[in-house]
Amino acid sequence: MAYRETEHTLAKKADTRLRLLKAARRLVQQGGFAAASASAVAKESGVASGTIYRHFPNKSELVAEVFRYATEREVAAVAQACDCGETAADKLTAAVETFAQRALLGRTLAYALIAEPVDPRVEQERLRYRFAYAEIFEDVIALGIQRGEFVAQNCQITAAALVGLLAESLVGPLKKEHEYEHDDLIHSLTALVLRAVGFKS
Amino acid sequence: MAYRETEHTLAKKADTRLRLLKAARRLVQQGGFAAASASAVAKESGVASGTIYRHFPNKSELVAEVFRYATEREVAAVAQACDCGETAADKLTAAVETFAQRALLGRTLAYALIAEPVDPRVEQERLRYRFAYAEIFEDVIALGIQRGEFVAQNCQITAAALVGLLAESLVGPLKKEHEYEHDDLIHSLTALVLRAVGFKS
Repeated sequence: MAYRETEHTLAKKADTRLRLLKAARRLVQQGGFAAASASAVAKESGVASGTIYRHFPNKSELVAEVFRYATEREVAAVAQACDCGETAADKLTAAVETFAQRALLGRTLAYALIAEPVDPRVEQERLRYRFAYAEIFEDVIALGIQRGEFVAQNCQITAAALVGLLAESLVGPLKKEHEYEHDDLIHSLTALVLRAVGFKS
Repeated sequence: MAYRETEHTLAKKADTRLRLLKAARRLVQQGGFAAASASAVAKESGVASGTIYRHFPNKSELVAEVFRYATEREVAAVAQACDCGETAADKLTAAVETFAQRALLGRTLAYALIAEPVDPRVEQERLRYRFAYAEIFEDVIALGIQRGEFVAQNCQITAAALVGLLAESLVGPLKKEHEYEHDDLIHSLTALVLRAVGFKS
């Protein structure tokens, strides 16, 4: 009986934790990390303020966890896009389109994840997730070289470069909503990336 | 008499401030921003700890000012590199080589300026300085298009993209000292950048 109670307690704890993360993600979607204070997250998720610190040791860890929770979904979407298409150029195009489309449709969240000045713990997570994106690109670039679609190059360097290229070229447009036509911007980015890998069209 | 005393006091204040910034820069060169605590800066510059807060309102502002002080020199070096050469491809190559060479010769400082997880105030400065680099690249890309060296493209998007490309492709090599041969890395980067702008060799 004690055992089942523990199981129940653990499940409830996991539930509350997920509720807090989802609430925090909604707040970041609306107003960036600046809007996801511990008290705001408590209010949004309908728990008492003190409860938050039973799930996260401090504010930094809460924010870092929200970052991970939101970013994992983005990384998964880009990875899935690479499963489509047969050629490396198709896969890379789909990855770039997915990354950029999702960012432009959820500007505030995307800006928060990519560039919002925030706690150093989130910066650490940003570095980790840039690496996760780079690993996805590295496989596609290697495939492209192997298939003779892309010029010979150091896949690791190019992969990291593409992550920086995509993130940085979106920072401006994410802040200046009306200056760019989505389709033009995405077309510019895919063309730029295909040139960068030396796609032989 | 009172006026001249004020002038003297102001000059002395500016001197001390510069001394603090230079000392902080040395510390960042040796151990990143983590090594540039207020007390370490005071010790390194030979002033009393309390003196620092007569020159900078708080730790964040000290760190942000050190970032600016160190980064301005880097931006100036890249801008100067663009003055060399006649063709846009030469200028862009010189800019990339300068950025990468300087980074690889001062790894700890470069990593601190580009990627070290640090105070949000430094993140704000990073965004500003990325824009300063982008403006330099934008002019060279526009020149290249005008001269028929580079393909037609949105200069602003490509310029921002190149800033991200360079920064992110150096983050890995700056952390893993022995994995890359400098010349190979710099050659990879210049080739990548020239492909990205669609250089018609």
